Amino acid sequence: MKQQRVLILGGGFAGLACAKEFPEDRFAVTLVDRWNHHLFQPLLYQVATAGLSMTDIAQPLRSILSSHKNVTTLMDEVRQIDLEAKKVHLKEHVLEYDHLVIALGAKTGYFGHNEWAHCTLGLKSLDDAMTIRKKVLLAFEHAEAAEDPQERARLMTLVVVGGGPTGVEMAGSLAELARVVLKDDFRRIDPSSAKIHLIESGPKLLATFPGTLPDYTRQRLESLGVTVHLSSPVKEAGAGYVVTGEQRIESDIVIWAAGVEASEVTRTLAGIPLDRAGRIQVEPDLSLPGHPEVFAAGDVAALTDAKGVRVPGVSPAAMQMGRYIAKTIIHEVEGTSTKREPFTYFDKGSMATIGRSAAVATVAGVHLRGLIAWLMWLFVHLLFLMGMRNRATVFLQWVWSYITWQRGARIIQP
Amino acid sequence: MKQQRVLILGGGFAGLACAKEFPEDRFAVTLVDRWNHHLFQPLLYQVATAGLSMTDIAQPLRSILSSHKNVTTLMDEVRQIDLEAKKVHLKEHVLEYDHLVIALGAKTGYFGHNEWAHCTLGLKSLDDAMTIRKKVLLAFEHAEAAEDPQERARLMTLVVVGGGPTGVEMAGSLAELARVVLKDDFRRIDPSSAKIHLIESGPKLLATFPGTLPDYTRQRLESLGVTVHLSSPVKEAGAGYVVTGEQRIESDIVIWAAGVEASEVTRTLAGIPLDRAGRIQVEPDLSLPGHPEVFAAGDVAALTDAKGVRVPGVSPAAMQMGRYIAKTIIHEVEGTSTKREPFTYFDKGSMATIGRSAAVATVAGVHLRGLIAWLMWLFVHLLFLMGMRNRATVFLQWVWSYITWQRGARIIQP
Repeated sequence: MKQQRVLILGGGFAGLACAKEFPEDRFAVTLVDRWNHHLFQPLLYQVATAGLSMTDIAQPLRSILSSHKNVTTLMDEVRQIDLEAKKVHLKEHVLEYDHLVIALGAKTGYFGHNEWAHCTLGLKSLDDAMTIRKKVLLAFEHAEAAEDPQERARLMTLVVVGGGPTGVEMAGSLAELARVVLKDDFRRIDPSSAKIHLIESGPKLLATFPGTLPDYTRQRLESLGVTVHLSSPVKEAGAGYVVTGEQRIESDIVIWAAGVEASEVTRTLAGIPLDRAGRIQVEPDLSLPGHPEVFAAGDVAALTDAKGVRVPGVSPAAMQMGRYIAKTIIHEVEGTSTKREPFTYFDKGSMATIGRSAAVATVAGVHLRGLIAWLMWLFVHLLFLMGMRNRATVFLQWVWSYITWQRGARIIQP
Repeated sequence: MKQQRVLILGGGFAGLACAKEFPEDRFAVTLVDRWNHHLFQPLLYQVATAGLSMTDIAQPLRSILSSHKNVTTLMDEVRQIDLEAKKVHLKEHVLEYDHLVIALGAKTGYFGHNEWAHCTLGLKSLDDAMTIRKKVLLAFEHAEAAEDPQERARLMTLVVVGGGPTGVEMAGSLAELARVVLKDDFRRIDPSSAKIHLIESGPKLLATFPGTLPDYTRQRLESLGVTVHLSSPVKEAGAGYVVTGEQRIESDIVIWAAGVEASEVTRTLAGIPLDRAGRIQVEPDLSLPGHPEVFAAGDVAALTDAKGVRVPGVSPAAMQMGRYIAKTIIHEVEGTSTKREPFTYFDKGSMATIGRSAAVATVAGVHLRGLIAWLMWLFVHLLFLMGMRNRATVFLQWVWSYITWQRGARIIQP
């Protein structure tokens, strides 16, 4: 029987979960990613705030897929998808497919204000994280060298936009970095006098979390020294400042964690409906309208599932989608099932960390906060991190950081 | 009593060892480095060959010196040293001193062929190591994607120039990377067919090592698949090739581990004798001729010591020099000693690793090789690595690599 060519675009949670499902005999799978690694995005903020090294949360796609002999990994960039010709144009190659899985993920989104991209820092890739780390560490170095008190104050002002999990984790981690980790290491400045602003357009932080968790989160952040601005949409951002409500905050470091949009490649799909963030509006079986052989998974897909739940852009959803698509393709090729059941998202709960010994979580309707939620957060993240080496290394870093209050990646990269 | 201003240029082994000696009450020490970290150069080749992460071998200078309250760390670049005015011009500042310690280290040297710097890769900084890692990993990615067999062969040819410890370690590590670590991870190419060339101008590898150790090193490298070229000085190097003897080797990756020269700042010292590599020809007490208040230490200093030994450019020598200078200054300021004893180098021995379970070492006249030398190499390097976190992390990586034959930092950085 003829081998089926499966082409998977993107080596994130969705693409990898999908690639691993295909049996060797009938499927020749090609996985394309523009990097050579899978990235564990949930811990990206810790790379940005010098807690972890970039190699701790990244794993080579080739070694993850080493034992899957039917999977070929290709490092290349997707330029255009031609649904009619069943071809994908990469930067260096053109690939044909029988089945296509689009899992290209999301990038930082600015709600139509793309000009803010130039004066703010996103947090979606290793590159982003390394840039933030470098800028934050350099800001304190420059403040130590600066003579002018105003200049020092400006250098030591850090802004995070977006009160979702990423923004909360980022702001909490920056506050602990300045107020605890760097405390004794400077002679002219007092790093604990650094100002950390967290700007949220809505009336509360972590808006998708239930009960008292949003309010608890705000209180804990404030006790870490973060200035929380609620109901404060960003009005303007430019080189060295951001304006929210009545306030203009002078800062070179404005981290944008307020929104995402789909990879721009979706715009090359002729005749396929996209939502405002560029996500593909998929059918209930995650296929593209009119193209049952093409699927979208993860942050690039927009779907309200069979239970009426809007599938969120989180890693468990991406993995569930990836596996669902692989099974659909396998069943149809093997002839074991022809009717496609609609995809349903199984929500395992959600969690966000605020700082040392403080997190919030909601699991199976139970709301948790404080130490117990924090320990659960640590455990779950270690569990889902890929590779024993990375797990052991991250665990070691966390134990060491907990004991010493230090961070292991305070290196300004070349 | 007036505080003495000690200015130390460079946060390497010499500068740090010096800075840590000064008592808090009488000395205000400023340490300047262009980076925010101390780098453990002996393990740099492992960062370059994806075994270790850059944060594993780098440590923030500020946190190393955190408890030394009389030491101020400044991240800045040295531009010019004005011995007459007792001032050092940095990029951003001008600093005055009572005592100056020049410990700026070395950079890659080309024996007058500076044009080769553009077509070869040095290995002296984190930046260098990250560049080599990226180029090597990308070469295999591109080979996997290439259609032309000749192009594939060229991409999978790696050249190391210089048969000293760095060159030997680099060549052995590259051979193991290609032939073992990457072996199962590609579908179109066979990484174990990669060609690794080690080019040495002299008649043997590790020329400073005694007895049969050079010959043993060559044999072990050859059994790892390295092609060793002895008595083969490089005649020419250009974009994509290198010429040695009769042979022209086509390669995009030519790693230059053949020589070093002192930081170019030494050229700004008016009237001070330098050797051909730009090193300062210091007095027996490591001071500059005519300037007893100015010292040079580490790779930037050229000295044949009181015992007639030419002090080598290795970290133990740098640390011994740094401590000797600090003690000299302290004794004179405190009045406990006015006559300076000449510096003598205490040679603890030397070692180089070739590959898994294979190294050579010479300690107190005893020659060691194979597993015992390798274990000693591991132990000594862990011991001298700074910081418990780095030690624990590196140890973990090594154990994991030994068991799995994998490497933990195979990430192509953004």
